Amino acid sequence: MIKRYVYGKPFETYSVVCLDGVTEAAGEERSLFAKVDMEKALEPYGGITWDRPEDAAMGAMQYTRTMESEDVVYGLGENVRGINKRGWIYESKCSDDPNHNESKRSLYGAHNFMIVAGKECFGIYIDYPGRVIFDIGYLDKNELAITVCSENYTVYIITPDITPDVTSADGISPLYSILRQFRHMIGRSYVPPKWAFGYQQCRWSYKTAAEVEEVADNYRSRHIPIDAIYLDIDYMKDYKDFTVDKEAFPDFPDFVKRMKDKHIHLVPIIDAGVKIEEGYSTYEEGVEKGYFCKDAKGRDFVVGVWPGRVHFPDVLNRQAADWFGHGYKVLLDAGIDGFWNDMNEPAIFYSEEHLKEVFEQIDEYKKANLDIQTFFEFKDKVDGLANNLGDYERFYHRATQPEGEVVIRHDHVHNLFGYNMTKAASDAFKELAPDKDILIFSRASYIGMHRYGGIWTGDNHSWWSHILMTLKMLPSLNMCGFMYVGSDMGGFNDNATEELVMRWAALSMFVPLMRNHAAAGTRYQELYRFTDTDTFRKLIEIRYALIPYLWQEYNKAVDSETLMYKPLGWEHPGDRHAVATEDQLYVGDSMMICPVYEQNAIGRHVYLPEPMTMVRLKSATDYEQEKYAAGHYYIDIPAEQVVFFIRDGHKVPLGKSAEYTDALDDSDAVWLG
Amino acid sequence: MIKRYVYGKPFETYSVVCLDGVTEAAGEERSLFAKVDMEKALEPYGGITWDRPEDAAMGAMQYTRTMESEDVVYGLGENVRGINKRGWIYESKCSDDPNHNESKRSLYGAHNFMIVAGKECFGIYIDYPGRVIFDIGYLDKNELAITVCSENYTVYIITPDITPDVTSADGISPLYSILRQFRHMIGRSYVPPKWAFGYQQCRWSYKTAAEVEEVADNYRSRHIPIDAIYLDIDYMKDYKDFTVDKEAFPDFPDFVKRMKDKHIHLVPIIDAGVKIEEGYSTYEEGVEKGYFCKDAKGRDFVVGVWPGRVHFPDVLNRQAADWFGHGYKVLLDAGIDGFWNDMNEPAIFYSEEHLKEVFEQIDEYKKANLDIQTFFEFKDKVDGLANNLGDYERFYHRATQPEGEVVIRHDHVHNLFGYNMTKAASDAFKELAPDKDILIFSRASYIGMHRYGGIWTGDNHSWWSHILMTLKMLPSLNMCGFMYVGSDMGGFNDNATEELVMRWAALSMFVPLMRNHAAAGTRYQELYRFTDTDTFRKLIEIRYALIPYLWQEYNKAVDSETLMYKPLGWEHPGDRHAVATEDQLYVGDSMMICPVYEQNAIGRHVYLPEPMTMVRLKSATDYEQEKYAAGHYYIDIPAEQVVFFIRDGHKVPLGKSAEYTDALDDSDAVWLG
Repeated sequence: MIKRYVYGKPFETYSVVCLDGVTEAAGEERSLFAKVDMEKALEPYGGITWDRPEDAAMGAMQYTRTMESEDVVYGLGENVRGINKRGWIYESKCSDDPNHNESKRSLYGAHNFMIVAGKECFGIYIDYPGRVIFDIGYLDKNELAITVCSENYTVYIITPDITPDVTSADGISPLYSILRQFRHMIGRSYVPPKWAFGYQQCRWSYKTAAEVEEVADNYRSRHIPIDAIYLDIDYMKDYKDFTVDKEAFPDFPDFVKRMKDKHIHLVPIIDAGVKIEEGYSTYEEGVEKGYFCKDAKGRDFVVGVWPGRVHFPDVLNRQAADWFGHGYKVLLDAGIDGFWNDMNEPAIFYSEEHLKEVFEQIDEYKKANLDIQTFFEFKDKVDGLANNLGDYERFYHRATQPEGEVVIRHDHVHNLFGYNMTKAASDAFKELAPDKDILIFSRASYIGMHRYGGIWTGDNHSWWSHILMTLKMLPSLNMCGFMYVGSDMGGFNDNATEELVMRWAALSMFVPLMRNHAAAGTRYQELYRFTDTDTFRKLIEIRYALIPYLWQEYNKAVDSETLMYKPLGWEHPGDRHAVATEDQLYVGDSMMICPVYEQNAIGRHVYLPEPMTMVRLKSATDYEQEKYAAGHYYIDIPAEQVVFFIRDGHKVPLGKSAEYTDALDDSDAVWLG
Repeated sequence: MIKRYVYGKPFETYSVVCLDGVTEAAGEERSLFAKVDMEKALEPYGGITWDRPEDAAMGAMQYTRTMESEDVVYGLGENVRGINKRGWIYESKCSDDPNHNESKRSLYGAHNFMIVAGKECFGIYIDYPGRVIFDIGYLDKNELAITVCSENYTVYIITPDITPDVTSADGISPLYSILRQFRHMIGRSYVPPKWAFGYQQCRWSYKTAAEVEEVADNYRSRHIPIDAIYLDIDYMKDYKDFTVDKEAFPDFPDFVKRMKDKHIHLVPIIDAGVKIEEGYSTYEEGVEKGYFCKDAKGRDFVVGVWPGRVHFPDVLNRQAADWFGHGYKVLLDAGIDGFWNDMNEPAIFYSEEHLKEVFEQIDEYKKANLDIQTFFEFKDKVDGLANNLGDYERFYHRATQPEGEVVIRHDHVHNLFGYNMTKAASDAFKELAPDKDILIFSRASYIGMHRYGGIWTGDNHSWWSHILMTLKMLPSLNMCGFMYVGSDMGGFNDNATEELVMRWAALSMFVPLMRNHAAAGTRYQELYRFTDTDTFRKLIEIRYALIPYLWQEYNKAVDSETLMYKPLGWEHPGDRHAVATEDQLYVGDSMMICPVYEQNAIGRHVYLPEPMTMVRLKSATDYEQEKYAAGHYYIDIPAEQVVFFIRDGHKVPLGKSAEYTDALDDSDAVWLG
């Protein structure tokens, strides 16, 4: 059962699309959330800097609940720490912050859905596109406190349709009942073209057609399968959306075709900001038609990002979104059939106004013959230029709402930007290429965007801990509807090692978006850059041999509105060892994975909550199977091998590998298990 | 056997004190290191920014060796990542960098000793106080490459005195043979007063005597044992070394005595920089006697740190060191018997010269109407002010060497600063308080300093991963002579949770320096701040009950020049599961620990390389014992309990707890095992 609580006059996010069976709370029930003094509510959290908005109407509402010691909290989509979110505090606030360490409270997405699982069991979805704070046993280990920084929002409380006893070991767990109701309410998840399940290679940046071709040839000549190569920001002319640098990529449509002939899709990036440059048609059209976000004085708002000074397209306005979506046409026309939308939190290196203020302040500091106090003020001022919360209060949208156009300050709807940029593209694709499946995914997101595209988990690091973080995020992303997901394999920031990339590949091969990506200035990490390319070829061949299973389970999970990645505790809610296992997952209905995520490891401990068959793959054609009873084991897993488990009574198809997805032949599969 | 290779004319670091049995390499042997083109040697590492010194005489030497796939590399003291250092690259360069993540190549210490363990087995110590780079299977997983950024240095190669077959399961492993030769050569490790094994509480900062007293009373009233409370930088008057803020701490000697009466030692911090302030005697004396480091023009060098503008005492000069060491007298006279030396990498927020340059550059940027390129240049300039490598080339020491005073630029001897600051204090203590054991430890260090004091592992974070990092560092710190060591329990930076502090305590209770410490602006993490103080009391009582064992094993390890913290692979070199275990340690001769370091865990997997008795402590008096055969196990370990193992045939004393170490009575122990 879903009960809806509407407070004030919420902004319509369009995240919920189906209200069948949703009942409206009324009367006393609505006291679920109480208005609290925001300053006071936030005060104990210390570390949260809250720039109180000038808009005095903005209050805070807080929901608190005592948790039992056995309660587990699942959800919140893209975030750090455990599958069980207990023990930390999270903030919904789409953030361009590459330091995904344990202290972070926000990453790029805002996914306000979670399930509290214990003796009682319920789901809660806060549909509010500004800031929401989830204290899940952080200040007090036994208290859950949700603070919504507004008086205008909607809450959905979802209770299971079956008996709420998560300790029962059989039957559908109440968790799935809650999940399916929620997923049904938010609508069907995006399904990418099948080639998007192939191996993909990215780097910031392959700067010329020749460089891209070299990457392709290095894969093809070594017979390492590959389906896509990415174009990061440098393919554009001066980082201008919907342009291609003609010197670096002469005759782009011909180049796209040449790559297609090699069965390689090119996937260009699109950034949120539109460069301010006379003669640049996207800029000039946007200005002329009033499609950019405005500052308080009604001028097109100016921030600095990769192209230098830019305006943001007002993707919350239907006309502006439609116009921006049609910008992708020039690339579709060139034969492109995949995109990734970036910098759409939206990221801000600095705002023109703020930079000016900081420079004026620096002049003062300089005169003052800096003491240590003012030195730190000076440093903080400069460090605070990027993604400054104050800048999000400096601009406005003309958002299309059911009642018409509404002018709203950005911070109140901050978490909707990436969602609507991606929806704009997706809507345009339906019109511009109705017969084509287009790959699209985004960095920033909000629930609702899952209907239009996937996400990647942003600018992670070449850290061993980020292999495990990838695994832990998968179930919570699925919970929030995001099915086409993946992390940058090998890590984006910092330098990778061969062993790290190998072990990461052995996890990413089970993830829909298997993309190797690295930042400018870091060590090259294309698979052929390392010594043991033979092993890398075998690993990627195993991925391709698994595509029949992965594609089938992906579509099943989308169709039946459930998880593709299931925590062990969802399948065995009465088994406390299963519930506490945070480094294994069920993938689809039949398979359990247990990747190695530690440097120099020779294997790992594995917990089997049920009898299973271990599959040990030395290559896509060379494997062993062995039966195991339920229990704790140590399994040797060399970096050259892949190990997974199959549930008793289940079968997993292992197809014949191919060098690209179009050449896969599902009929060739052997059945493991 | 130890062979010494002297290249050029090395700077005398005094890290090696005993050359008995050391033979001099001659002739062809000396080709072990070959001169290489430094630029070329460093080029593939990309990420290493090498500010080539102007001193043209400085070359680079490089030693490379192919590693077998089974080779394990131990050592390098204070560093991130594994007990087995393979798979990453490290740089010896004492660094004030609080972000101890997997990408770091340097922390606060420079500990150039390691052991390669495989079919062949040898130790290598690079005695050079400037930059040394250890690529241990980073660029190529099978290659070890050591680059010394100088032509003047000494190398010691240590081979075992027994058969170098690490696969033999019995007898003393060659690793211990190598280690003992090395430790003998560098001299006996520091032993602190026994009270320094008590529980200790710190925060940046307890600002007044009243605040300190409140902390003490909160511990005493809850009967949570405690032996020391720390004074961070705010106890000083304007951060001036060897001063006490008289308003905040009126009648300091009386206050020290009052705390002593409560059996609590006060441990004040001493920083490296001496504030420039007329009338401040330390400053005026230093200037008058010429005891500060000089810039290229012979003026006292100016940098900014906590007090604002400061000079660095030239602790490499014997007279200056003697003078600085005697500065501690004012605090000793007040009854203080413990110190921690900080900021002695030395940390630099900015140098006066560099700051001026940056401000001039900012003026240019401002005029230039920043484009994105210059915006990043501007940001980098400001971010690059702190601990800038260039600043370390701007000042000079008049170092005391066997041949007399030598003027040397700081970057060539950078890693000796913290060592010599701490030695200065230790030398002075011998003179000023010959009958007293004084606690002293340092943030920065170099091998040699282990004879004069301990270290804490610097400004870590309230991260779960930092519990495990603490464990992994312990053996390598011991290898390099550092026995009195510990990490900030609960984490210094960022916010801790109750569960994190509890689990951290369950590791720190086995570590000599058990100090809870947190940064300004973070959540309070004194044990009484949380809800379950009863559990915290029990945990600290267990620590006190373990002090008889820990103190005995500490002194044994010091006396016999061996490890107190032993990787499983050192005890079972022929057991590949033992060698690969990186989250358990032997503590002393009889005990093995297996802390829980994961949020929401209910226990953990444990590997027993030999039959053992599990001890499960619910309190210092309530425990269970159970025999286990060798093998892999999952052990339930609630956060309220402590589990360790005892080797067959061994006994571990469990004493009676007390509220402070002086009240401990060793005769009361029961014998576990």
